[in-house]
Amino acid sequence: MDPKVMADTMWTLVTAMLVFFMNLGFACVETGFCRVKNSTNILSKNFIVFAVSSIAFWVLGYGLMFGNGTGFMGTEGLLFLGGADNSPATGEAYKGAYTALNWTGVPLLAKFFFQLVFAGTAATIVSGCVAERIKYFAFIAFGFVIVGIIYPIVGHWIWGGGWLAQKGFLDFAGSTQVHSIGGWAGLAGILALGPRYGKYNKDGSINAIPGHNLSLGLIGCFILWLGWFGFNPGSTMAADPDAISRICITTNTAAAAAMLSATVVSTMLLGKPDLGMTINGCLAGLVAITAPCAFVSVMSAFIIGLIAGIIVVLAVIGFDKLHIDDPVGALAVHLANGVFGTLCVGLFAESQWTPGQASGLFFGGGLTQLGIQLKGVVAVAAFVFGVAFLTWQLLKATMGIRVSIQEEIEGLDIGEHGQQTYPEFVTRKPAYSYVSIAERVAE
Amino acid sequence: MDPKVMADTMWTLVTAMLVFFMNLGFACVETGFCRVKNSTNILSKNFIVFAVSSIAFWVLGYGLMFGNGTGFMGTEGLLFLGGADNSPATGEAYKGAYTALNWTGVPLLAKFFFQLVFAGTAATIVSGCVAERIKYFAFIAFGFVIVGIIYPIVGHWIWGGGWLAQKGFLDFAGSTQVHSIGGWAGLAGILALGPRYGKYNKDGSINAIPGHNLSLGLIGCFILWLGWFGFNPGSTMAADPDAISRICITTNTAAAAAMLSATVVSTMLLGKPDLGMTINGCLAGLVAITAPCAFVSVMSAFIIGLIAGIIVVLAVIGFDKLHIDDPVGALAVHLANGVFGTLCVGLFAESQWTPGQASGLFFGGGLTQLGIQLKGVVAVAAFVFGVAFLTWQLLKATMGIRVSIQEEIEGLDIGEHGQQTYPEFVTRKPAYSYVSIAERVAE
Amino acid sequence: MDPKVMADTMWTLVTAMLVFFMNLGFACVETGFCRVKNSTNILSKNFIVFAVSSIAFWVLGYGLMFGNGTGFMGTEGLLFLGGADNSPATGEAYKGAYTALNWTGVPLLAKFFFQLVFAGTAATIVSGCVAERIKYFAFIAFGFVIVGIIYPIVGHWIWGGGWLAQKGFLDFAGSTQVHSIGGWAGLAGILALGPRYGKYNKDGSINAIPGHNLSLGLIGCFILWLGWFGFNPGSTMAADPDAISRICITTNTAAAAAMLSATVVSTMLLGKPDLGMTINGCLAGLVAITAPCAFVSVMSAFIIGLIAGIIVVLAVIGFDKLHIDDPVGALAVHLANGVFGTLCVGLFAESQWTPGQASGLFFGGGLTQLGIQLKGVVAVAAFVFGVAFLTWQLLKATMGIRVSIQEEIEGLDIGEHGQQTYPEFVTRKPAYSYVSIAERVAE
Repeated sequence: MDPKVMADTMWTLVTAMLVFFMNLGFACVETGFCRVKNSTNILSKNFIVFAVSSIAFWVLGYGLMFGNGTGFMGTEGLLFLGGADNSPATGEAYKGAYTALNWTGVPLLAKFFFQLVFAGTAATIVSGCVAERIKYFAFIAFGFVIVGIIYPIVGHWIWGGGWLAQKGFLDFAGSTQVHSIGGWAGLAGILALGPRYGKYNKDGSINAIPGHNLSLGLIGCFILWLGWFGFNPGSTMAADPDAISRICITTNTAAAAAMLSATVVSTMLLGKPDLGMTINGCLAGLVAITAPCAFVSVMSAFIIGLIAGIIVVLAVIGFDKLHIDDPVGALAVHLANGVFGTLCVGLFAESQWTPGQASGLFFGGGLTQLGIQLKGVVAVAAFVFGVAFLTWQLLKATMGIRVSIQEEIEGLDIGEHGQQTYPEFVTRKPAYSYVSIAERVAE
Repeated sequence: MDPKVMADTMWTLVTAMLVFFMNLGFACVETGFCRVKNSTNILSKNFIVFAVSSIAFWVLGYGLMFGNGTGFMGTEGLLFLGGADNSPATGEAYKGAYTALNWTGVPLLAKFFFQLVFAGTAATIVSGCVAERIKYFAFIAFGFVIVGIIYPIVGHWIWGGGWLAQKGFLDFAGSTQVHSIGGWAGLAGILALGPRYGKYNKDGSINAIPGHNLSLGLIGCFILWLGWFGFNPGSTMAADPDAISRICITTNTAAAAAMLSATVVSTMLLGKPDLGMTINGCLAGLVAITAPCAFVSVMSAFIIGLIAGIIVVLAVIGFDKLHIDDPVGALAVHLANGVFGTLCVGLFAESQWTPGQASGLFFGGGLTQLGIQLKGVVAVAAFVFGVAFLTWQLLKATMGIRVSIQEEIEGLDIGEHGQQTYPEFVTRKPAYSYVSIAERVAE
Repeated sequence: MDPKVMADTMWTLVTAMLVFFMNLGFACVETGFCRVKNSTNILSKNFIVFAVSSIAFWVLGYGLMFGNGTGFMGTEGLLFLGGADNSPATGEAYKGAYTALNWTGVPLLAKFFFQLVFAGTAATIVSGCVAERIKYFAFIAFGFVIVGIIYPIVGHWIWGGGWLAQKGFLDFAGSTQVHSIGGWAGLAGILALGPRYGKYNKDGSINAIPGHNLSLGLIGCFILWLGWFGFNPGSTMAADPDAISRICITTNTAAAAAMLSATVVSTMLLGKPDLGMTINGCLAGLVAITAPCAFVSVMSAFIIGLIAGIIVVLAVIGFDKLHIDDPVGALAVHLANGVFGTLCVGLFAESQWTPGQASGLFFGGGLTQLGIQLKGVVAVAAFVFGVAFLTWQLLKATMGIRVSIQEEIEGLDIGEHGQQTYPEFVTRKPAYSYVSIAERVAE
C-alpha cells in the first residue's frame, strides 16, 4: 500500500469527522442563542438536517457537483455515486466520471465523505436564520433542495471545474461555497418568513431576545472552532505537511484576532463585553479566513481576523436596524464574513501560495484577482438567493413554512414536537429588561 | 520505521480515542433522558464505569479475550497483559500469547487501548438500563464482572479465535459483541431490579417519564455518532484506505436512513416528531450497521438503516407494553438492533468484501451465513443473560442492588451522592401531562 | 514527500487539536463548579484566554521559549516566529533559530501549534483559581503576561534547552511546565485577590459553595480526559508507534486509578461518593502522570494514579482549611499533583525509557534524578510565584483586579457582562444546607 495514499486518506477522513462534528457545534450555538420554548425544535432541525444532507448528497448532490459535465453542472455519474472512478489515481492518470477531484489520490468514498460534511454545513447554517418560526417539515424539505440541488450546482462552478473555476475564482475551503451559500439561502428564508412575533415594534423599535443558554452557546462555539481545524486544513484532502500546518495557524490566528476585535468593538458600542458578540466574533474570523487560509501569511490572517471581528458586530446591529430578523446572528457571521473572506483572497493572497495566479491587491497583484472574486460573489448571490427564494415561496404555497401565531407564542417545542427540552425546570421571561442591542448603541 | 506501522498505529489510536469519547456520549444521552433528581447518579455511573473497565480489562479481561487458549477462553498471558508479544509483526511472523490479533501489526498497547474502549462501551450500555433505581456501588461491582469476565469470554468466542469465530460467525465491529452483550446484561439487570416506582400503574397502564434535558441528550447523540466513526472504521485496526473510507459511509448512511425512518414512523404513531425517537433512531441505525459495516454496499446500509429506525420505535413501545422498564430505550437501541444488525450480515453481506465466506441471503449466498449468525446470537444471549442474571442475584443477596423506595422517590442524587446536579435551579414535576408513549399510540 | 514527515505532522496536528479542545473542557469544569451568577463570566474568561494566548505566544512567547539564546531565555527569532528555520530537517542537519526542537522533523508551524495549545492550557488553569471575583479585563491582562513571558521563560529552562534541561530535569508533557506553572500563578492570584465573599466566616468556619451544573462539569472532565490523549502521547511530536501506544495506556491507567482512589477516600471522609471529587480525582491522575508518562511502566502509572487520587482529596480539604479559596479545586489538581507528578519521575522512571539518564529511586537509580526533579520544582515555584505575584500587584495598583463587593454579591455576569447565562430559568440559593467539606470531615 502506498503510504501517501494511507496518510492522505487518514487525513481526509479524520478532518471530515471534525467537520461532521460541527453539526453539534451549530446545534449548540443556535439552540443556546434562542429561547427555551423553541429549543427542542432547533435541536431537532440541526440534528435531522445532517440525515437529510447525507441522503440528498448521495442520491444526487455529489454527481451534480463533481460529475464531468458542462460549466454549469455535472452530468456524468449523477446518481448514487454511480460513475466509474479509479481513485486513488491522481492527475493525468485519473480515468473516471469525477475528474474535478482528480488532484487528490484518496478513495472515492473518502472524497464523498469530506464533501458531504461540507454540504451539510451549508444546510445547517440556514437553520439559525429561520429559527423560532419555521415549520419543522418545511425546513426538512428545504434541506433536500439546498443539499441536493443548490449547493452542488454552485459547487460545480467553484470546485467542480465549472465556469467560476475556469475564470480563476479562488475559494480554498468555502467562504463563498459553504458560508455565503448558507447565508444567502437563509436570507431568502428570513424574507419569506418575516420576523419573529414581538421582535420589532410598530414604532420601529427593536426588542432584544436573549438566548436561553450561553453554556450551550460556548460549547457550540468551541466545537465549531475545533471543527474548523478539519474544515480548512482538511480541504487539502492530502496530508501535505507544510500546507496543513500553515493553514492550522492562519485559521487559528484569524479566529483569535476576531475575538479580540469583536470584544473591544462591542464593549465600546454596548458598554460591556457581551459573550454572544465574542462568540460571533470568533466564528466571523473563522468564516473570513476560510477562503484565503491557504493563500495568505499568518500576519495577513491576523489582519483579516481583526477586520472580521469588527464587521460582525456592525452587521449584527445593521441587520437588526433593517428589521431583518436573524435570531442567532447567522447572516452577520456567515454571509457578511463569507463575502468579506472571499474578497480577502483578492486583497491578501501571495503568489508563492497560489501558483499560476496573481497575488492580491496588497501584494502587488493589482485588481485582477479581486475582480474575479467579486464576480464570483455576485454570481453566487444572485443564483442562490434567487433559487432559494423561489423554493421558499413554493414551500409556502404548498405545505406552508411558518407556524401559527398561537404556536409561535406558545413555543415550537409543544407545537411541532409535543415535548419540552427541560420539562422539570421552572422558567419565566428573562428577568432583565428587554433593551435591544440597537438601543444600547443609541444610548 | 515502517510507515505502514506508523499509519496503522495512528489510525488505531485516534479511532480508539473517538470510541473512548463515546463514554461522554452515553453519559449525556442517558442523563438527559432521565429525571433531574437522578442525574448526578447517572453522570457518576457513566463516568466511573470507564475507570472500572480500564482496570478490569487490564488485570484480566484482555487476557481472557485474546490470550491463546481453548475455544471458550484465553489462558495464556492472562493477567496484566503479561504474555510475550512481538507486535508489530503480523500473521505468520507473529510469535506471542495473543495470536488472535496477529492480523494487525500495531504495538500490543495500541491493540489493548482499542479493545479496552470497546469493552467499556458494553459496560456503559448497562448503565442506561438500570438507571434511576440501582445502588451506585452495586453498579460498580457489576462493571468489574462484565468487563473482567463476561465481555471477554464472549469476546474470545467471536474475536479471540474461539468457537464462534471458527464457525465463521461475522461481527465486524460488534453489534453482538458490544451492543447485544450490553443489552442482554442490561435486560438481566432490569428483570432483577424491577421497574421504577411510578412507571406502571396497578391497572397496567403506563406513565411516561420524560427526560430532564434534551440538549444534553442531543449532545450525547452527536458525540456517539462521531464516536462511531472510530468504532466501525477503526475496527480495521489498520489504515486501509478503501476499507476505512467505505465503512465511514456505510456507517453514516445507515444512521441517516434510520433517523429519517424513525422520525416518520414515530410521527405516524405518536402524532408529532419526537426528538427522543429521532435520537434513538440514529443510534439504532448505528448499532445495526456495526456488524455488517465492512461487508455491505452503501445501498444495503441505507436499507439496513431504514429498517433499524422502524425497529427501534416499535421496540421502545413494545418493551414498555411488556412492562420492561428501560428508562432510556437502551434495549430498543442496543439489544433489538444489535441482534438485527448481526443477522443483517447473513442477509446483506457480499462475498467481494467477505473473502472466503458466503454472501448473505439477498446476494445469492443462501441461508448458510444467516444460520451461523443466528447461532451466534442465541449462544451469546444464553450465556450473557444467564451469567449476568446470576451476577445480579448474587449482588442482590450480598450488597443489595436497589435503593430504598424513599431514596428512589427523593432521588438518587441526594441518597447516593449527597448532592444535586443543578442546586440553584428551581425544578418541579413536568408541566405537561404524563401521557405515555403507549397511550399516545393507542389513541 | 517523506512518509515519516507526513505521519509525524499529522500526529502533531491532530494531538494539538485535542489539546486545543481542552479549553472547552476547562471552561465546562470551571463554569459547572461555580455559581450560576458568575457563569457567563467564567465562560467568557476561559474562551477569550485562548485568543489572548494565540496572539501572545505568536508575538513573543514562542521565541522566548525556543529561540536559541542563554540558559535563561531565547533571544534569536524572538518576535512573530521570525527566525530562520529549516524544519523538517532533524538533529544535526537542522539549521535555524529554534535548535531546541530540532529533534522533531515537522514544519515550524506544526511545532508552534502544538506548543501554543500547551501555553494556552497553563493560562486557562489560572482562570479557575481566580473565579467568581476577578475583573474580566484584569484577567485578560494577566493572560498576556503569563503566555507572553512567564510560561515561555520557564519553558526555555525545561524544553528550550535552558539550564534545567542541561541539568537533566525531566518533565515529559508538563506536570511542571504546564500544570504547576498554572497552579503557582493561580495561587499568587488567590493570595492577591483574597477569598470570595461569604466563603469563610469570622469564626474561621467554612461555607461550602456548590457548583451550579454538574452535567457541565462532567462534560468538561471527559473532554479534558480526551484532550490528554493529545497532551501526553502528542508530546512525542512524532508518530512513534511504541511510544505513543504506551503513553496512551500509562495516561489512561493513571486517570482510572486516581478516579477509584479519590472516590474511595472521599467516600470514607465525606460519607458519600461526591461526583466533584471523582472528577477532580480523574484530573489529578492525569496531571500526575503527565511528567512521567513516557518513562514509567503501566503498573507504575497505576500506582501513581492511586496516590494522586488520594492527594487531590486531601489537598482540596487542606487548602480550604488554610482559607486559600480555590473555587474549583484547581490548586489541588494542578499544583499539588503537578509537583507530585514531577517528583514521580525521580521515583518511578526506568532507564529503558530514559536513555542516558538514571532510573528513579524505586528502580535502582538512587536519589540522583529525584534531586534534580526537586530542584526544578523549587526553582519553577520561586520564579513563577514571584513574577506572578508581582504582576497581580501591578495590575491591582493600576486597573484593579477585584470587582466591587456589590458586584460580587449580585454576580459578575451582570456586573462584568450585562447578561445572564440562563435568563429564562428561575434560580435560587441551593436548597440543601451549606455544610462545608471540612465540616463533613470533622463530623
